[in-house]
Amino acid sequence: MQAEIITIGDEILIGQIVDTNSAYISKALNNIGVKVFQISSVQDERSHILQALKEAKSRVDIVLITGGLGPTKDDITKQTLCEFFDDTLVENQDVVAQIHDLFSTYIKRKPLPSNLTQALVPSKAQVLPNSFGTAPGMWMEQDDVVFVSMPGVPYEMKALMEEHVLPKLRDAYDRPYIYHKTLLTYGEGESSIADRIETWESKLPEHIKLAYLPSLGRVRLRLSSSGKNKAQVIQGVEQQIDLLLPMVEEIFVGFEEEGALEETIGKLLTQREQTLSIAESCTGGRIAQTFIAHAGASSYFKGGVTPYATPMKVSLLGVSQELIDTHSVVSSQVAEAMAIQVKALFNTDFAISTTGNAGPSLGDSAAPVGTVYIGIATPNGVITEEFRFGKSREKVIQRATNKALEILRKEILKN
Amino acid sequence: MQAEIITIGDEILIGQIVDTNSAYISKALNNIGVKVFQISSVQDERSHILQALKEAKSRVDIVLITGGLGPTKDDITKQTLCEFFDDTLVENQDVVAQIHDLFSTYIKRKPLPSNLTQALVPSKAQVLPNSFGTAPGMWMEQDDVVFVSMPGVPYEMKALMEEHVLPKLRDAYDRPYIYHKTLLTYGEGESSIADRIETWESKLPEHIKLAYLPSLGRVRLRLSSSGKNKAQVIQGVEQQIDLLLPMVEEIFVGFEEEGALEETIGKLLTQREQTLSIAESCTGGRIAQTFIAHAGASSYFKGGVTPYATPMKVSLLGVSQELIDTHSVVSSQVAEAMAIQVKALFNTDFAISTTGNAGPSLGDSAAPVGTVYIGIATPNGVITEEFRFGKSREKVIQRATNKALEILRKEILKN
Repeated sequence: MQAEIITIGDEILIGQIVDTNSAYISKALNNIGVKVFQISSVQDERSHILQALKEAKSRVDIVLITGGLGPTKDDITKQTLCEFFDDTLVENQDVVAQIHDLFSTYIKRKPLPSNLTQALVPSKAQVLPNSFGTAPGMWMEQDDVVFVSMPGVPYEMKALMEEHVLPKLRDAYDRPYIYHKTLLTYGEGESSIADRIETWESKLPEHIKLAYLPSLGRVRLRLSSSGKNKAQVIQGVEQQIDLLLPMVEEIFVGFEEEGALEETIGKLLTQREQTLSIAESCTGGRIAQTFIAHAGASSYFKGGVTPYATPMKVSLLGVSQELIDTHSVVSSQVAEAMAIQVKALFNTDFAISTTGNAGPSLGDSAAPVGTVYIGIATPNGVITEEFRFGKSREKVIQRATNKALEILRKEILKN
Repeated sequence: MQAEIITIGDEILIGQIVDTNSAYISKALNNIGVKVFQISSVQDERSHILQALKEAKSRVDIVLITGGLGPTKDDITKQTLCEFFDDTLVENQDVVAQIHDLFSTYIKRKPLPSNLTQALVPSKAQVLPNSFGTAPGMWMEQDDVVFVSMPGVPYEMKALMEEHVLPKLRDAYDRPYIYHKTLLTYGEGESSIADRIETWESKLPEHIKLAYLPSLGRVRLRLSSSGKNKAQVIQGVEQQIDLLLPMVEEIFVGFEEEGALEETIGKLLTQREQTLSIAESCTGGRIAQTFIAHAGASSYFKGGVTPYATPMKVSLLGVSQELIDTHSVVSSQVAEAMAIQVKALFNTDFAISTTGNAGPSLGDSAAPVGTVYIGIATPNGVITEEFRFGKSREKVIQRATNKALEILRKEILKN
C-alpha cells in the first residue's frame, strides 16, 4: 500500500514558496498506514503533469495531487486530468450551489463568472466538497490506481484530507499499522550520540529502523516499524526505547509525538500550576510566539516584553543604566537582571530572558555577532549562560530559542 | 539548461520535516539562469535512489542531491553514488584535515572514528569543502550530466551552494537570463483580481507568464520571462508592470523582490526616521518577530509587549479595568487603548495592537473564535478594525499578522 504525492506549481520550482502540503499529507497518510514512496513537484505544464501522473501510476496504488486548481488561466490541472483520463469537463450542480453559498455567507456578493468555472469537473470524477473554498476535490480511478486532486491552498487541502480523502482511503484498503516514536535530545551532536548508543544500535532488530535527525542544537532519534499486528508493532518499538533511554538520559527531553518541547514545558507548568513570562531582546518575540502557537498557552503564559532598543530595557524593565554601562547590554549581568525583572513585573514562577547580537553588524555592544546570553529565573534564583551561535541571523535567533527552551525545562524539573 | 533536485531522507516522506532546502536551491538556481524542471523526494533506500538518479539524468543537465550524508548507519547516499558511478570510496586527506580543524576550533576535542568516515568520498568525485560541517560536497559527472551531492543540514548546504556550486555552474554553462517580478497585493481574492486585470492579461505577450499565488489575505502576482538578452527580458516585464500597476493601485503594497511587506515598512520608517512599537495579545510575539527577523530592525523597532493574560493589559499597559469590564477584553475599545498606551510607553511614532481569540476555545471574552481587533496608532490618532479570521489557531495568528502589516503600511503613507 504505497502512495505518491505530486505537487503542481511553478511557484515551488522557482523557490517562491516552500512546499508544506507534502509534509502534512505524508504525515496524515502514515498515520493511517499508507507509506509515501515519493514526492514530486512539477511545473504547471501539460506534458510534464501527464508524465508525472504516468510515472506515479506505474509505482503506487494512490496518487495525491495538489495545486493548479485556481480559477485563473495559469492553472491547468483539471484540463490535464481530463486528457489523462480521456474525459471532458462538465458543470457539477452541487459545486455551483456550494459556490453561491460560500459567496453569500462570507463574501456578501454574487460569485463572478470566473468563480463559477470552479464547478467544471471531469465527468468521471467523484466530487469531494471543499468547505473552505471554491475548488472541489476530485477522486478518480484508473486500472485500480486512485488519483485524488486537491487545491494547493493549505487549509482547503487539509479540510478535504480530513473530511473526505482519509476516511475514503481507510474504507477502501486493508492497511498495515505504521508506528514512529521520536526521542528529542538537546545539546549533543549526532556522532557523539551514535557512539553513546552503539552497543544498542548494533543489536537493533532489522524490522525496526533508526534515523538521526540533527538541527540547530538538537538531534531527534526516530524509531520506525510497521506490521499487521498493531500491539506487536508498538511493543517492539517500546521495548527498544526502554533499553535506549538510560543511555541518553542527560540529553533526552521528551518524545516528539507527545508534542514539541514548548508543549512539554506548557504541560509541566500547567500541571504544577506555575506560570511563565519572557523578556526577549535579540530573539524579539520568537520565544513568546513559539509558546502561544499552541492552544492552552493562556493557562501558564502570562506574557512578555521585547525591549528591543537598549533604553527600553531601563525604562520598561527597570534594568539599571549603570549595570548596562558597566557590563554592556549584551552581558550575563543584563540577562540576569532582565530575567529577574520580567519575573517580578508579570509575577510569574519562571522567566526567560535573552540579550545578544543576532547580526549581521555590531549593535549597542562590542559583543561579536552570534553572542547570546540566556537567563532563566526560577522560584529559587536565576542562572545565565553565554553562547556563540554563529553568523546567520536566522540561525542565531532559532538556536537561542531552542537553547532557552532546553535550559528552562531543566530548571523547571530542578526547582 | 535545466536542473533537477533530489532530496533523500525518510524524514521528508513521513512528514517529519518540511523540505525547505529545495525552495532555497530552486531560487538560487533561478537567479543564475538555471531552470528547475522537477523536485523529487525519495527514501533512504538504495534502489529508489538509483532509480531517481537515472530518471533525472534522462531529463536534465544538472542534478543536485541533498541528504543522506551523515556519519550514522541510516545514511547511504555515498555508497549509492559509488554504485551509480561504478566507483569506490577513498579517504580524502583534505577532508581529514578539515575535520580535525573543525573539532579543534569548535568542539574542543578530537574527532571520533565515526566523524572521520566523513572523509571517505567516491574516487571520481571532486570534493567541495564544507566550512560548517564534516560532510563535504561532491561534484561528479557522467555523460555530460553534472551530479552534486550535498548534506541536508540547511546552513551547510547553503554555504556549499554559495561558495562552490553556484560559482562552478556559472563558469561551466552558458545560461539565459531569468527574470521574475512579483506584485504583492492585500485584501482582495484572486478571482476579483483576475476580473480587474482581464483586459491586460488577455493581451500579455506569450513569452511573459503570469501566475496568481493566493495565501491568507493576500495574493501575489508573478510575472516571469527569460532570454539571452538581459536588458530586453527586464524591459519586457517592466513595460507590462507599468500597464498593470494602475489597475491594482488600491491593493498593491510592493514588490516581493524588494523584500517582504515588513521590510518595505522598515525601509519606509527608517527613511522617515520614525519608530514603531507593538502590543500584541492574540498574536503573542508573531508580529514583533516578523520585523526583527530582518537585519536593521533596530533602526525603527523600539520593542513590544505581549500582555497575554488580561490583568497584564491593565498593570503593564495601563488599559483601564473599567474599559475591559464594559466592552470585554476582545473589543475595539481595548485594541484602541492598547495601541495608544504602547505608543506612549515606547515613545514611538506608530504602534500596532492586537486583541482577539485565536481559539480553539473561548477565552476571557465572549467573542467567537477567530475574532481579532487590530489597532494602529499614528502621530495623528488611532484606528481600529474588526476581523473574523476563521477557526484554525495558526491561520488566525498569521492572518492577523498579515492584516496588521497591511493596515500599518497604509497608515504610514497617510500620516
